[in-house]
Amino acid sequence: MGLRDGAAGSAGSDPVTGRFIVVEGAEGVGKSTQIARLQAFLGEAGVSVVAGREPGQTSIGEGIRELLLHGSRSPLPPRAELHLILAARAAYVTEVVRPALDSGRWVVSDRFDLSTFAYQGYGRGLDRERIAEMNHDVTSGLAPDLYLVLDLGVEEGMARRARAGRSNDRIESAGPDFLNRVREGYVELVKSRTNAVLIPADGTPEQVEGRIRREIMRRFPEVGDLP
Amino acid sequence: MGLRDGAAGSAGSDPVTGRFIVVEGAEGVGKSTQIARLQAFLGEAGVSVVAGREPGQTSIGEGIRELLLHGSRSPLPPRAELHLILAARAAYVTEVVRPALDSGRWVVSDRFDLSTFAYQGYGRGLDRERIAEMNHDVTSGLAPDLYLVLDLGVEEGMARRARAGRSNDRIESAGPDFLNRVREGYVELVKSRTNAVLIPADGTPEQVEGRIRREIMRRFPEVGDLP
Repeated sequence: MGLRDGAAGSAGSDPVTGRFIVVEGAEGVGKSTQIARLQAFLGEAGVSVVAGREPGQTSIGEGIRELLLHGSRSPLPPRAELHLILAARAAYVTEVVRPALDSGRWVVSDRFDLSTFAYQGYGRGLDRERIAEMNHDVTSGLAPDLYLVLDLGVEEGMARRARAGRSNDRIESAGPDFLNRVREGYVELVKSRTNAVLIPADGTPEQVEGRIRREIMRRFPEVGDLP
Repeated sequence: MGLRDGAAGSAGSDPVTGRFIVVEGAEGVGKSTQIARLQAFLGEAGVSVVAGREPGQTSIGEGIRELLLHGSRSPLPPRAELHLILAARAAYVTEVVRPALDSGRWVVSDRFDLSTFAYQGYGRGLDRERIAEMNHDVTSGLAPDLYLVLDLGVEEGMARRARAGRSNDRIESAGPDFLNRVREGYVELVKSRTNAVLIPADGTPEQVEGRIRREIMRRFPEVGDLP
């Protein structure tokens, strides 16, 4: 249920559909922290929120996530990685995102298709037009209402995590060159999309949260009208 | 090594490459039996054979096979199934098929890309041109030297398995209509490919084996030249 029910009720004709918000960004930019805060903010505003993540969330998606992390004794060929992610997305859209939006709930997703363009396209060098075609096919063309792309220098993210006593193993094994390509990819991807915004992720978590809240209020003014 | 080494040696210039033979067909046509016999036949002829199966064979491929069989609590969306299979193929070609062929060995594979056209294309109704593009991408255009497509009526296959005391559960749960579309798909697929042949799978295992041996000798006369 939630806010969109009310909005639809007052307009009298709009179908009840939720909003689809995706939080994106390279490793170490602070996605998890900001997703938790965004969910809390929307919840306080009366929005019924479904939290999702990719790859994952469905039973097959969690199996695929496990395969991506630990499933191969040899380095996974980039195309195997790509198709595993697309398989997870097909199930995620069908089983999680569409039903939630159709029932008027909002979905806040930890990653979605921009990750594929940034990581497998810009990062691994796979053809981005082919990725776009396949992605359109597995999502049936579903486009998020908003991508919040957290942006931070790779070195800066690692330093921040080190100060917090958190491991940089995954970032180091991915390689700074790779992650710099991913970051630059995100910057390019945002430029060509009106439904995407780059959120500087430097400063305190509260500062970043403030930037995100302002963007949400600007894009979805109905959030401010709630009791 | 095996026969192709000798052939390359006698020709003096051919690179050492093995042959890639794929055994295809719907459930219940007797693939496993015939694959074992074909491997034995080639082995006796002095060919070094690598046995493969799809999806599977690599560590990621076996994980994907497990996900396809038991990984989803809900029916898997057809596109999720398709991309899982393509992911497994990317690893199979890279890690198993190419290295074997490059070292002069033959690969006898239990299924390859014709299965995807037959099951996901003809069976599930996904766009076959799109499948062809994606398949070309994950295989880097690798084409088998020969597809042996075992062909048997769906009802006939079930009756045969029942007589042998084997379960028809999987065939029944897939549905006879689906399997009839798969079978008709295979027939169509063979028509447009010079590297594919339909092998009638009725009669005794020895009769079917004889048909396969004759096809192998006709296509690869070097097999008969061996000591």
